[in-house]
Amino acid sequence: MSRYWSSVVRNLSPYVPGEQPRRDDVIKLNTNENPYDPSPHVLAAIASATARLRLYPDPRATGLRTAIADRFGVAADQVFVGNGSDEVLAHAFQALLKHDAPLLFPDITYSFYPVYCDLYGIGYETVPLDPAMRVRIGDYRRPCGALILPNPNAPTGIALPRDAIEAVVAEHPDQVVVVDEAYVDFGAESAVPLVARYANLLVVQTLSKSWALAGLRVGFALGQRPLIEALERVKDSFNSYPLDGLAQAGAEAALRDDAWFEATRARIMASRDALTEDLHGLGFEVLPSRTNFVFARHPDHPGARLAARLRERGILVRHFPKPRIADFLRITVGKQDACQHLVTALGDILRAPPGG
Amino acid sequence: MSRYWSSVVRNLSPYVPGEQPRRDDVIKLNTNENPYDPSPHVLAAIASATARLRLYPDPRATGLRTAIADRFGVAADQVFVGNGSDEVLAHAFQALLKHDAPLLFPDITYSFYPVYCDLYGIGYETVPLDPAMRVRIGDYRRPCGALILPNPNAPTGIALPRDAIEAVVAEHPDQVVVVDEAYVDFGAESAVPLVARYANLLVVQTLSKSWALAGLRVGFALGQRPLIEALERVKDSFNSYPLDGLAQAGAEAALRDDAWFEATRARIMASRDALTEDLHGLGFEVLPSRTNFVFARHPDHPGARLAARLRERGILVRHFPKPRIADFLRITVGKQDACQHLVTALGDILRAPPGG
Repeated sequence: MSRYWSSVVRNLSPYVPGEQPRRDDVIKLNTNENPYDPSPHVLAAIASATARLRLYPDPRATGLRTAIADRFGVAADQVFVGNGSDEVLAHAFQALLKHDAPLLFPDITYSFYPVYCDLYGIGYETVPLDPAMRVRIGDYRRPCGALILPNPNAPTGIALPRDAIEAVVAEHPDQVVVVDEAYVDFGAESAVPLVARYANLLVVQTLSKSWALAGLRVGFALGQRPLIEALERVKDSFNSYPLDGLAQAGAEAALRDDAWFEATRARIMASRDALTEDLHGLGFEVLPSRTNFVFARHPDHPGARLAARLRERGILVRHFPKPRIADFLRITVGKQDACQHLVTALGDILRAPPGG
Repeated sequence: MSRYWSSVVRNLSPYVPGEQPRRDDVIKLNTNENPYDPSPHVLAAIASATARLRLYPDPRATGLRTAIADRFGVAADQVFVGNGSDEVLAHAFQALLKHDAPLLFPDITYSFYPVYCDLYGIGYETVPLDPAMRVRIGDYRRPCGALILPNPNAPTGIALPRDAIEAVVAEHPDQVVVVDEAYVDFGAESAVPLVARYANLLVVQTLSKSWALAGLRVGFALGQRPLIEALERVKDSFNSYPLDGLAQAGAEAALRDDAWFEATRARIMASRDALTEDLHGLGFEVLPSRTNFVFARHPDHPGARLAARLRERGILVRHFPKPRIADFLRITVGKQDACQHLVTALGDILRAPPGG
């Protein structure tokens, strides 16, 4: 605390991202990165873009927005891009989710949402997941200023069908509904096809997971013009050039390599299903995941203990010491050999004498 | 305007950056980019960093902050980095410049400052430059919540000596003073040596100008821990990873190539002084610049007309249609041949019959 701080800084409880070790000798299953390298076209595009580093990048990211528009069948002016979906979400909270009535989101979800609310002074109410850790859309039929729903939800990994998302959007014509689809490409249904019909729908995606570009920081939002314009107005009042020239070029090249995308996500989904089976075999309860991670708990072993024992063996997973989910581990789906190491280690840990 | 917009969006007047043409056949003297390519070490570092694109970057940018700390003789925890100095400034406005009493800055300065104030609801008062377009520090001896002074100022290009900056900082021990040094490396005195002695001083710099990395989006701030901590708290409540892995690696490599830096800025300062002489020869008044641009007006030719005529000849400069400066052109110092093209074109335009 300092007398130089503004009042907003004093009241923040910043988000804590998953650990990014600088060593390469760990098995890193803690931040939901893609285990495969991105499309080789990305590297070629980046190499080419280095020739223009002395110049400011295109502040509108025209090439990248066009690639996104082409991929999703929308107009380029229905696309907003930002420095990772975290930045896109931050702008959406300030521009579209701050109203007199409270914002609604699940009690168990991406833990950055309440942080954004504190940053921008947004009142919010959390809606409990049902006992099976699912979003129950009927619980969102209540007065509110706006809604944000991750689909699939994190860290549960559970997805709603598009029909359910549409029902929420249709039931709130006067409220913005942001659907945060960071993990949608691993087997869930995207709400993007609804954008043309619903003026209140904003869909947010990222290149950090399914596109294997967490290191490049590119996220985007799709919506009708008034919603996109709101994001543009905030962005242009914050930072004209949030995406550097290399990120714009690399992301555009990635999005145009559909063959890489389809092959890679299929491999990850297959590994996820195999990992889920293996964890079942060890006695874990595993929530049905449509993401590149699994959320699992063992009836006899607290999550914190398991995470600590795995860390001793050089395997990082994520554990959230929070109500309702403290017994769970969130485990990123790695390559086959990383998953096998994890399963072997968990088997050893479960067999060890208590306290050992 | 849309019913979905938050009240803050409705009231914004976003910043308008200088034009970034997608054509390469213009002489681009409008956005103060460095005319020389960055250090070759930058490209090597970026190529190496592409091997880790699937992973999140270091959210603390440890390597880059260490390079900055080494260069400026401060501790790494006295360094904050962001996505261009625009993002660093945005966080500083929200974290350190928002108080009950108004923020002070010059009436003619970086036009993003009032935009940030609107974005964050910060009350401000502008302090007029003196008739010679200089910041007169005595005019800042008045009650305020905080101050931001660009040094050198933009778009005038005029610098204050370090003694004058120190006087302002010393006269406001209870207020944060941000010194925005985007252009300081072209012949002005930095306030960085004052950081150790003044708890209320934050110095902001960028790699976009003197380091020729506008396309990479890296800016930084130096200050004592409480000020840096405030920026970190806002950043970690906004976007955990604003600097991608390539930008971190490239910027670190740049900052460690002092030979490139000294040679390049010397060339630009020499070109600036030659350009100033040439403009004097054409009858222009040129403000004394300590930056990589000149701010110049002709007694007989309105700035808007000159800018339009230059554009017809494929030369872009920046013109601000605002009180007190509408007669001026802001001209980036290019390579020698670009400056010569500009001077030749201006000579032709001045000799053409009025209305021609």
